[in-house]
Amino acid sequence: MTKKYQTHATATKFCRLWIAAIFTIILAADYASAKGVRSLDIASFGVQAGQKTDATPAVRAALEQCRKEKVPRLIFSPGRYDFWPDQAFEKYLFVSNNDEGIKRIAFPLVGFDGIEVDGRGATFVLHGFLMPFLVEHSRNVRLKNLTIDYARTFHSEGKVLAVSKTGVDLEISDDYPYEIRNGVIVFTDGKKDDDPKTSVRSKEVVYPYGMLLAFDPKRRETAYMAQDRFGLESGVAAQAIGPRKVHLSIEQVSATVDDILVFGPSHRDIPGFVISESAKVTLSSVTLYHAGGMGVIAQRSRDIELENVRVTPQPGGKRIVSATADATHFVNCTGKIQMCDCLFENQKDDATNIHGLYARITGKPAPDKITVQLMHPQQAGIDFILPGMRLEIVDGPSLTQRGEATVRAVQRINKEYMLVTVTAPLPLQVQTGDCVADADANTADVVIRNCTIRNNRARGILLGSRGKIVVEGNTFHSPGTAILFEGDGRFWFEQAGVRDVTIRGNTFDNCNFGVWGNACIGVGSGISPECRKTSRYNRNILIENNFFRVFGPQTVLGIYSVDGLTFRNNRIEKTNAYPPRPGQAPTPFDIVDSDNVHIDPADQLLISQLPK
Amino acid sequence: MTKKYQTHATATKFCRLWIAAIFTIILAADYASAKGVRSLDIASFGVQAGQKTDATPAVRAALEQCRKEKVPRLIFSPGRYDFWPDQAFEKYLFVSNNDEGIKRIAFPLVGFDGIEVDGRGATFVLHGFLMPFLVEHSRNVRLKNLTIDYARTFHSEGKVLAVSKTGVDLEISDDYPYEIRNGVIVFTDGKKDDDPKTSVRSKEVVYPYGMLLAFDPKRRETAYMAQDRFGLESGVAAQAIGPRKVHLSIEQVSATVDDILVFGPSHRDIPGFVISESAKVTLSSVTLYHAGGMGVIAQRSRDIELENVRVTPQPGGKRIVSATADATHFVNCTGKIQMCDCLFENQKDDATNIHGLYARITGKPAPDKITVQLMHPQQAGIDFILPGMRLEIVDGPSLTQRGEATVRAVQRINKEYMLVTVTAPLPLQVQTGDCVADADANTADVVIRNCTIRNNRARGILLGSRGKIVVEGNTFHSPGTAILFEGDGRFWFEQAGVRDVTIRGNTFDNCNFGVWGNACIGVGSGISPECRKTSRYNRNILIENNFFRVFGPQTVLGIYSVDGLTFRNNRIEKTNAYPPRPGQAPTPFDIVDSDNVHIDPADQLLISQLPK
Repeated sequence: MTKKYQTHATATKFCRLWIAAIFTIILAADYASAKGVRSLDIASFGVQAGQKTDATPAVRAALEQCRKEKVPRLIFSPGRYDFWPDQAFEKYLFVSNNDEGIKRIAFPLVGFDGIEVDGRGATFVLHGFLMPFLVEHSRNVRLKNLTIDYARTFHSEGKVLAVSKTGVDLEISDDYPYEIRNGVIVFTDGKKDDDPKTSVRSKEVVYPYGMLLAFDPKRRETAYMAQDRFGLESGVAAQAIGPRKVHLSIEQVSATVDDILVFGPSHRDIPGFVISESAKVTLSSVTLYHAGGMGVIAQRSRDIELENVRVTPQPGGKRIVSATADATHFVNCTGKIQMCDCLFENQKDDATNIHGLYARITGKPAPDKITVQLMHPQQAGIDFILPGMRLEIVDGPSLTQRGEATVRAVQRINKEYMLVTVTAPLPLQVQTGDCVADADANTADVVIRNCTIRNNRARGILLGSRGKIVVEGNTFHSPGTAILFEGDGRFWFEQAGVRDVTIRGNTFDNCNFGVWGNACIGVGSGISPECRKTSRYNRNILIENNFFRVFGPQTVLGIYSVDGLTFRNNRIEKTNAYPPRPGQAPTPFDIVDSDNVHIDPADQLLISQLPK
Repeated sequence: MTKKYQTHATATKFCRLWIAAIFTIILAADYASAKGVRSLDIASFGVQAGQKTDATPAVRAALEQCRKEKVPRLIFSPGRYDFWPDQAFEKYLFVSNNDEGIKRIAFPLVGFDGIEVDGRGATFVLHGFLMPFLVEHSRNVRLKNLTIDYARTFHSEGKVLAVSKTGVDLEISDDYPYEIRNGVIVFTDGKKDDDPKTSVRSKEVVYPYGMLLAFDPKRRETAYMAQDRFGLESGVAAQAIGPRKVHLSIEQVSATVDDILVFGPSHRDIPGFVISESAKVTLSSVTLYHAGGMGVIAQRSRDIELENVRVTPQPGGKRIVSATADATHFVNCTGKIQMCDCLFENQKDDATNIHGLYARITGKPAPDKITVQLMHPQQAGIDFILPGMRLEIVDGPSLTQRGEATVRAVQRINKEYMLVTVTAPLPLQVQTGDCVADADANTADVVIRNCTIRNNRARGILLGSRGKIVVEGNTFHSPGTAILFEGDGRFWFEQAGVRDVTIRGNTFDNCNFGVWGNACIGVGSGISPECRKTSRYNRNILIENNFFRVFGPQTVLGIYSVDGLTFRNNRIEKTNAYPPRPGQAPTPFDIVDSDNVHIDPADQLLISQLPK
């Protein structure tokens, strides 16, 4: 019997190999080493879906061949491919609003002109500190029909069993391996570290955390009015209180029993898609279940299109968080930014933020020279000031323009500081504390259409591009402000100041159930209060034909320092989705220090007639 | 009176300025912008000793001028100069046996041929994460008459008040600012972090720790038989028990009341002097009070001389630790290594270690191709395998030679892995798990003469160079083995295997009062026990005219796998310096699996006649 089975097994094995060979030939039919090949199949590099071996070297080799031989397409088959960092391409990256460092990258698309990666329904499961996609110094890049997930997430989740004055009791599932080590909770990858402990760094993989936030497991969104707890980078004292149960010795955590408490990572080291100094990049039918940083971050790039991109937790209900920072983010981008039919939910920060960069003037050693500092630690190394560039110079607190200058030369001091020489003496009023930006970046025309944005930490979309912006047909269910006009030269150093915005036909579905703002559409806190009277940073905003569903007295529109805003033909409905927010009832239209603001009397009437 | 005093003060001030001006002129007398200048004085760059402003930009500008105009000397004046990292030169460095990363560097000596930095008695006080000296791709470099210290050390120290089963009570002085944060002890620079806590990394400076070790405050050395406590990188739970008093909730710490417990940093990010791919580098009359890593680390360099280099804690008794890792370390060096009249004390690891690098063969994809991994995380990125190089190939566990090969090409996969093609098919027996080394590096002739080595963690000197080694006239008071022959292809991946060593006229003064070895002169644990019978890794060692002072039954010489050793004309004396080491009394000569070992009968007799 055994013998027969073996024979059968051998025959089956032979048969399988034969089928595999035929398949390989069929799949790789259009592959050849000669030039002019239109497509490579990863199968011809020895990698099959479902194989559970490391696909990284094959993908690296395939992409290298695509680049060298100008093959414009790399295809996969439906099913799962696994990726480990060991053999991955490596590069030190400065990624705006994420963390710099040496990254290992599964799909390094560097220096391409014309490449499509078509997953054809494939799921890429990454292990450890490995970044999925880098698109750098490339153009005409299309990534489509693929899903990205991680075997172990960069964040961890636990169910709240009890909350007391002295701490929180949690139950933590097997999906989030941890240890209590020297009285401190440490998240790991669950692999036993058998190496002897020595005076040098261990190779053990730990998942450092830096913050806590409670989510509501029934609504699957941030818990009602839950507050962030930051500053945990050095660890939290903890005691084991049962199998996979711990007591965190941390006071005043904003959570209630049955909430899911999320340990957010202390870093943004592993964003999903980094697009840098590239043009014409499209993500189409791409699903991102997780990232250890932002989902998609594009910097100093042109013409970025996201179509049916879904940032959403892995199905099955084991996780409540998708990406651990913003779903998308665009810095100093030009041309077009388009996001259509996308889903951005449950990520640990905003759905998008489109802005430029300000750097602070720290000295004026000569009439034509300024020293400049990239102030935000996650902007360091983004050397955006280049010879020939037109600089916009603004007053730091008010963001009002002080003048312009053209760069003659830049001397880099280090990743934070540079010495900039301009072509003519600077206006006398330019001084230390002022900010400079690239006057011609952050000018993309933006379309955000038919997207669903919900359940994530913080805000919906932050608009700061100077181009034409259209936001239409979207549904927002954001715990903070759904649409925010930000920008400041004091804290985040994000250049903004819109010029032409249309917000049309959107549904604002019970937003502001959290602590990150209190208006459905608002202006952020970037401009110094004493300067708001004169500053008119944001301009020409049209808000029409939208539908606001609000669960209590709420600010529909909260703005300051705006010049030109029309609010018309909007509908509003009262709901009982949440208890009213604590504190004084706000005014529906909170408009100060602004010019040319027109609220349609019909809209105003509708709002005033809402049931209390 | 006030008026008069003011006038007097003004006159004095004028006088001082005038004197300063004259001095500046005198000191900078040989400075001019024309070519042919022989010396630059830092004073001519606007920096005076005692000024307490940041000397970093001036030093950077001065060195840049030296390099560009081939000025061979930069001088300072006696007194204190302060350095901050803000404006410093920056470079990503891979430093063997230290930690890689972007470093800020006060004295960047990159690409120099012929430069002397003469401190003339100056003390350089560094603030924060700033590395003092980098010598890279340079030759004929002389650094002299200078002292380096840090305003805040990378390690922290506390006085033990009590030791119990549940933990340790400590008193921590103002020199080591700390906080108890979320129940975890966190060391800081004492500056208040006023920035709002957010979802991005803070700029706060913290001093992460990873290990504990007790020191004896009376003897000012590692406490008798104290053991390292590693693995604290994720923090230690702690409670405040009084002003600057804390209870650490950590069991079984090896310390007693009144000991000084040292929190060693979790990194080796900031070594003192990094010498990389350079030749003819001399440090003369240099004092290093502190470093956040090794004191002097030279890699892939030639002809390094240390003369009157002192690694020692800052005077005044406020600190018990000097550098936080080895005092010196030499990796793949050639030519000469000379250390004369040096003092290496109280550093947190060995006084020196001279070795090569092994990388592990992880695959053999073709008869002439191997994939190779740099295994030790602190060797990653040291791309020592280059085309044309002669490779030594050894069996991993035994270190016996398997063959040689010459490199044709190297394809770097990332900082850990490479694909190496050799010029001819490899011997068949070469297999995965074997190790490769540069056969022509780690060949320096070594002289260590008239040095004092004492009170530091671990061993004295680790000898692994294949060149001629002379160790004479030194005094060792090491808690572990004073002179160790190491090397392994399994854990540290340090290539060693001496060929010609003379150990003559040294004093071994009550060594082995700690846990890091049990012989005055010994062979380390690198070769796999089952291979020791046949391996003869270390060869030709002469030990003569030394003076051994031992405090109890002790192994004077503990060796295995040695071919050729003579021990003659040595003196020995019994002391009562410490209690006998716990455990079974060792044999004075512990010699196994070795050939051609000659112990002079007179020496043997002397040792046998020692009082018990």
